[in-house]
Amino acid sequence: MKPVYLDSNATTPVDPDVLEAMLPYLREDFGNPSSAHALGRRAHEAVEWARGQVAALIGAEPSEIIFTSGGTEASNMAIRGGATMRTGRQTVVTTNIEHPATDACCALLERKGLIVRRVAAESNGIVDPERIAAAIGADTALVTIIHAQNEIGTLQPVAEIAPAARRMGALLHADAAQSVGKVPVNVDAQGVDLLSIAGHKLYAPKGVGALYVRRGLDLPPLLVGAEQERGRRPGTENVASMVGLGEACRLAAIALEAAPRRMQELAGELFAKLKRAVPGVELVGDRDARLPNTLNVLFPGVSGRQLLASCPRVLASNGSACHAESEEPSAILLALGIPRDTALGTVRLSLGRHTTRDDIEIAATELAAGWRAMRQRAPSATH
Amino acid sequence: MKPVYLDSNATTPVDPDVLEAMLPYLREDFGNPSSAHALGRRAHEAVEWARGQVAALIGAEPSEIIFTSGGTEASNMAIRGGATMRTGRQTVVTTNIEHPATDACCALLERKGLIVRRVAAESNGIVDPERIAAAIGADTALVTIIHAQNEIGTLQPVAEIAPAARRMGALLHADAAQSVGKVPVNVDAQGVDLLSIAGHKLYAPKGVGALYVRRGLDLPPLLVGAEQERGRRPGTENVASMVGLGEACRLAAIALEAAPRRMQELAGELFAKLKRAVPGVELVGDRDARLPNTLNVLFPGVSGRQLLASCPRVLASNGSACHAESEEPSAILLALGIPRDTALGTVRLSLGRHTTRDDIEIAATELAAGWRAMRQRAPSATH
Repeated sequence: MKPVYLDSNATTPVDPDVLEAMLPYLREDFGNPSSAHALGRRAHEAVEWARGQVAALIGAEPSEIIFTSGGTEASNMAIRGGATMRTGRQTVVTTNIEHPATDACCALLERKGLIVRRVAAESNGIVDPERIAAAIGADTALVTIIHAQNEIGTLQPVAEIAPAARRMGALLHADAAQSVGKVPVNVDAQGVDLLSIAGHKLYAPKGVGALYVRRGLDLPPLLVGAEQERGRRPGTENVASMVGLGEACRLAAIALEAAPRRMQELAGELFAKLKRAVPGVELVGDRDARLPNTLNVLFPGVSGRQLLASCPRVLASNGSACHAESEEPSAILLALGIPRDTALGTVRLSLGRHTTRDDIEIAATELAAGWRAMRQRAPSATH
Repeated sequence: MKPVYLDSNATTPVDPDVLEAMLPYLREDFGNPSSAHALGRRAHEAVEWARGQVAALIGAEPSEIIFTSGGTEASNMAIRGGATMRTGRQTVVTTNIEHPATDACCALLERKGLIVRRVAAESNGIVDPERIAAAIGADTALVTIIHAQNEIGTLQPVAEIAPAARRMGALLHADAAQSVGKVPVNVDAQGVDLLSIAGHKLYAPKGVGALYVRRGLDLPPLLVGAEQERGRRPGTENVASMVGLGEACRLAAIALEAAPRRMQELAGELFAKLKRAVPGVELVGDRDARLPNTLNVLFPGVSGRQLLASCPRVLASNGSACHAESEEPSAILLALGIPRDTALGTVRLSLGRHTTRDDIEIAATELAAGWRAMRQRAPSATH
């Protein structure tokens, strides 16, 4: 039986057109973009074309795009570089529902003596922009915020936060790893100075990402070495994957016309089916301000981890894939005030462009049957 | 006319078997290794299999291999992490013929207050191990040395340096980006604690590399984030490219049986042909202790850059590809005491596994004809 893939927030498949675009650079056009000869020049041109495609998706200039090895590197560059650019400013403002890359960067900055203010999200999984604004002061170097929360899918009001950051002269970084390609993202509309992109969340391969750096911002490099990426990110360019990311961005712009609505409909149907079959099932996070593809569902009285293990046909995660090995409840759900026992029932169902109505039907049926079987084996457990 | 690729030190093509091994992970097996479901487990197993293949090539344990985005990241981790591990030790010992990644890391450490001792290579392009040993003191945190010099191909006596580093309690890092796959490299025989590998120099794709970290060495991470690579290198694993690097290492072990001798023969023939056709042509660097595939040739009285531009069929670099845009003479050649004017005549001819006798014939003919034409246009220039 064909499995149903509902783990698109963990990673997406590489779009066949993306792979097609990459293959010449894994075969005959293998030159080093720094080589002056014909093969090198072709590789260089391919990278610059791809840079334009990435820029176009988010309304940036090509020169504002730095290719990285992924979202984590992009966020490390943005946060660790951005926080130390404003001499004399010693604080960073963020939230308590960030990706581990942001959390770890903030912890690192704290060890270096900076002060990190973590504004708590509301119980709907969204931070109040006024609370963020209140946390930004004249001592704030950087505001860093996840655009779409990776586990629950809620969209954070980055655009509403931007004026406060700008007013106080603080840089604004959005971790848009989960949002770019799923919802329209425009760097000017969002008002960000820095924005992280992860290729493998938008049908490009793993191991490539990008950082948007607003024109004129002289972000210090994280890796040091030769002069690639105009001295901002050394190392021989990952040509094929950059070409893949460019093509994926081109395809995303097209997909954004119809795919979000379709995914939202399917996600709505999936939750409705679960609600009918599983009494007490709950959706975590705001119903409206969210990614169209992400459902974080609390199944009552069971472990989400065990539920998924009992439904091998449904490929999904409890919490983020980054924590799949953990027996601990999700720190994100706890941050929203969800009790530990309840939080253990979480299953993240993240749809993709290729998710079908059949997939939804199968997933709902399997999860409901799995839940019933678990409840029967543990009849005395509380709802 | 088919071009002749003699720029293998800039980058190698992806071996067709490597691409074949990668493709399933760019198609159906696209899972995130951190996902607990079947697709995730398959990806996880592929990464661990590849880790074993990389380890096997250099005589390491799989747990001693950290995958990175390339050689530059590996060297950044090794040097910046390694130099700060020995509390109270404030000096780093290196050479004056390092790759820009090492140079830049050393410069960064200097800005942080460490002292970097750069031992000059001898005129044959090899550092004297006794001079390195003399530079290592009780205050030395790290010795970092390029194993095979990327521009001239000379092999540095890492194994002879290791006892001095060990005796003084300093860590030893070898930048083996150019040597792994071209000559046998064994971490125990070399006596290194840290060793950098770049995938795209050994027929794996660009954008992947590895760092060997000796068991028990608690190297601090460079990027911070989630728990991938056992907390030592966060970010969703670049599964396909890691698989590619693993397969490339497996193939390299096989190729090491015959390819080096063959390349050495062909390189010898190429230089002999050039010597016959171009009076005054010189080979830079030691004739014996060198990579079998690399010839750094000084053409008298011409610019190597212009010579290559006049021979579009010969795809090679002057200096390293990292500097291809530069009009300056190679810093490496200057470091060996070669005069500026002479150094401008450099052409790096780096052979690959697929180089044929025909390629050698064509390259020699084209370069000699190009040189003659340039000399005729500038008849008054000195030899």
